[in-house]
Amino acid sequence: MADPRFFDNHGPFAIAQIASSLGATLEGAGNRMIADTAPLARAAPAHLSFCETAKFKNDLARTQAGAVLVREEMKDFVPASAVALVVRDPLYAYARIARLFYPQADGLHAPTAGFAVHPTAVLHDDIAIEHGAVIAEGTEIGPRSRIGAGAIIGRGVAMGADCVIGPGATVFCAYLGDRVIVHAGARIGQDGFGYARGPGGHVKIPQLGRVILQDDVEVGANTTIDRGAAADTVVGEGTKIDNLVQIGHNTHIGRACILVSQVGLSGSITIGDGVVLGGKVGVADHVTIGSGAMVAARAGVTRDLPAGGVYGGFPARPAAEWRREVAALARLAKGKRKP
Amino acid sequence: MADPRFFDNHGPFAIAQIASSLGATLEGAGNRMIADTAPLARAAPAHLSFCETAKFKNDLARTQAGAVLVREEMKDFVPASAVALVVRDPLYAYARIARLFYPQADGLHAPTAGFAVHPTAVLHDDIAIEHGAVIAEGTEIGPRSRIGAGAIIGRGVAMGADCVIGPGATVFCAYLGDRVIVHAGARIGQDGFGYARGPGGHVKIPQLGRVILQDDVEVGANTTIDRGAAADTVVGEGTKIDNLVQIGHNTHIGRACILVSQVGLSGSITIGDGVVLGGKVGVADHVTIGSGAMVAARAGVTRDLPAGGVYGGFPARPAAEWRREVAALARLAKGKRKP
Amino acid sequence: MADPRFFDNHGPFAIAQIASSLGATLEGAGNRMIADTAPLARAAPAHLSFCETAKFKNDLARTQAGAVLVREEMKDFVPASAVALVVRDPLYAYARIARLFYPQADGLHAPTAGFAVHPTAVLHDDIAIEHGAVIAEGTEIGPRSRIGAGAIIGRGVAMGADCVIGPGATVFCAYLGDRVIVHAGARIGQDGFGYARGPGGHVKIPQLGRVILQDDVEVGANTTIDRGAAADTVVGEGTKIDNLVQIGHNTHIGRACILVSQVGLSGSITIGDGVVLGGKVGVADHVTIGSGAMVAARAGVTRDLPAGGVYGGFPARPAAEWRREVAALARLAKGKRKP
Repeated sequence: MADPRFFDNHGPFAIAQIASSLGATLEGAGNRMIADTAPLARAAPAHLSFCETAKFKNDLARTQAGAVLVREEMKDFVPASAVALVVRDPLYAYARIARLFYPQADGLHAPTAGFAVHPTAVLHDDIAIEHGAVIAEGTEIGPRSRIGAGAIIGRGVAMGADCVIGPGATVFCAYLGDRVIVHAGARIGQDGFGYARGPGGHVKIPQLGRVILQDDVEVGANTTIDRGAAADTVVGEGTKIDNLVQIGHNTHIGRACILVSQVGLSGSITIGDGVVLGGKVGVADHVTIGSGAMVAARAGVTRDLPAGGVYGGFPARPAAEWRREVAALARLAKGKRKP
Repeated sequence: MADPRFFDNHGPFAIAQIASSLGATLEGAGNRMIADTAPLARAAPAHLSFCETAKFKNDLARTQAGAVLVREEMKDFVPASAVALVVRDPLYAYARIARLFYPQADGLHAPTAGFAVHPTAVLHDDIAIEHGAVIAEGTEIGPRSRIGAGAIIGRGVAMGADCVIGPGATVFCAYLGDRVIVHAGARIGQDGFGYARGPGGHVKIPQLGRVILQDDVEVGANTTIDRGAAADTVVGEGTKIDNLVQIGHNTHIGRACILVSQVGLSGSITIGDGVVLGGKVGVADHVTIGSGAMVAARAGVTRDLPAGGVYGGFPARPAAEWRREVAALARLAKGKRKP
Repeated sequence: MADPRFFDNHGPFAIAQIASSLGATLEGAGNRMIADTAPLARAAPAHLSFCETAKFKNDLARTQAGAVLVREEMKDFVPASAVALVVRDPLYAYARIARLFYPQADGLHAPTAGFAVHPTAVLHDDIAIEHGAVIAEGTEIGPRSRIGAGAIIGRGVAMGADCVIGPGATVFCAYLGDRVIVHAGARIGQDGFGYARGPGGHVKIPQLGRVILQDDVEVGANTTIDRGAAADTVVGEGTKIDNLVQIGHNTHIGRACILVSQVGLSGSITIGDGVVLGGKVGVADHVTIGSGAMVAARAGVTRDLPAGGVYGGFPARPAAEWRREVAALARLAKGKRKP
């Protein structure tokens, strides 16, 4: 289900063809055509999906996918509407099939020498394109937006009005709202960091999602925002991101958040509205941070944090608790029993 | 008081006009013309300033500004020489007025397609400009300096002799001394991270200062140095900065310092001469670190550090104390009372 | 012994000439010609080497160098085959002599305006060079490789088949295997962070090594990999590096490792095969991490870590021990004696 603005789908392929390319055991009819891949919860009958572990059993039971990559022990959970493709490692098999559909899935489509601005780009009124900027095919640049010197706007990227893309920044596989500011050298929309274990080592899982930067988002210099793996990476309205921040794939950030410099968000994180993350805060995979939470500089968030609280330390915990521990340790080292 | 090499002032404006654009209550004559904005301590009679909180009462009492944005409860502290503009939130009001004077305050002035080197650039002897470099109007490149491939030198930037600007680096709103080295992808002079709280969310405070890199400064690859908000960000003579370091607005770094990779300095920090900051050290806002201090890798500096000491941990404290705490905790976990 | 693909050697120089440029005391014949510099262990009779401290006494005793920079107290350890050049500070003296041989040792050789692709570049079949890319002299781009928009490939760089160099990335002084992916804005091959103490402050030690990225290496967006000082910085086959990672000079990383975002490796580190470093992990100089070790996010590695273990905390220690300490501290702060 990759966005055709950014990725070319080389399908469809018959299920039998997919099974044979994987050496998979086919449990069902092989002549159905598969048009695309999709996650279990969002798949349609023309899609192939995969079930990595028993953790996703419910999604599997309810999927509308036409074919599913599963382990032997999960095949009885595949609904009747789907063909089961039994493989040893569904994630690795998915990585290979995603590459079959999207062999050029690096998403880095820019024009080759000859065009600085591709003739198919839609350029609205009063835009400025500075020297050395490159604007690829199928892009749309909203009114009064400015593309900085040496900035590169990849194929299909669309941005609204009054955006500023800083010098030397790169924007790929992304939709930007109005008044979005991307500072110098920021990297928007490159591959997320996703690998399956293959027989010969780490195998890249094609990253087929997008980056969505809503209205009034600001992205700092040399910050990196990876595009989603299958879904999108989203930064909500009015959120401000400082320099040298890392935002991993599939992360959703709410509105009016503040992310201070050198924050690192790994993948599939959910952050509410009005959250403040201090400098160098790190957040682990799949964590949720509630709206209005404030996380002190240098904290390491390893578990969900409820909305509205103030947190600090590593692992991040309520700030009062963290401060008590810092004080207790200082007393301990001084040989005192109590304050 | 923005440097006209980098910013275009759209003033002057009459005080009454400013008051009306803000919906501010005017305490005094409205017909005086205001030519610019400036901090309380540096303002002249033709300037508008602002007093954010009572903390700046002394600066307010002594200011020579012609007009000052203040809260109701502070208006009696405004000197007779100034007109008080009473507003709910002086910082937010300042952000709006700074934008009135400097509507294009992003400072990212580079030539649009047509000029790789602007005809007004002053190019001294024996310089090298590599392919794809962009040099904007009003710049000055000193003798024997080299501008790397794809590097971008913004409007008005001046550098001395024997500088090397690495490939793909961007330099805006900055003065560089002699023998300055800026490595590949470093970002010099973009906006600092400064916002006021407005009714609709975070409002950008125009960043009207500069970056000063003195003689023999070296800036690592992909390091980011934000320009000052109203004053300058300064890096002293002979200071060496590693890769992926963040330096926030208004920070002053002394001479012959060493900042190891991934150091993060937030804003308005003062660092003496000969200071060494180990890898990943973070320093909070408005902190002062004395000359000759050494801060161990990964420390988090939250308070002023006296000159000449060795510090570590988070919060950063004398290294001996920090090491005692680490040892005490290890003993505690092992169930031992004493070493 | 700098690779002539990347650096121009301005030698040879007679030993007497070298001694006089340093004001060194010459212990032996001064008429021998020195063709290059090299580390003690790898030097040949035509090379000048240096011995920084008594720690390297064994290397000194065995060196085949024709001349060695030493302190007074070390001169009796110089083998008979070598001329001793007695100086106050051998490292500083080396920095000066390395600059004599390699005056343009910044390694940033890219063509000046006029060539986007240098006519001496060897371009294999089916490569793509996107708009604004710059390819310097003496480079070799393997079949089906793609050079992204605005990417810069420095003098002498060679890469194998099916490589992808992302938009705006820079690659200098490097050899890349097959199927190497370098994401947007990554910086490969700039100077390491190496200085000697001179009378006027920090003096740059010319960085004359290279970067070797073996087959199937992936380098994240805005990651920085410094080239070696005298030896090379090496990333082994199939190793995957996330965004905003720093890799210092002379570091050797094994095969199939995973380095998560914002990891920082200082210099001369040795990492085995299959090592996983979590987000924001930092590793100190000269540390060795054994194959298969896993280091939890945010750990700070200050000592060698044996192969196969799981480690965490700062200083990094076995994860079980680290977790016990975290729990003990929490109990202490709550005033409990035991769990």
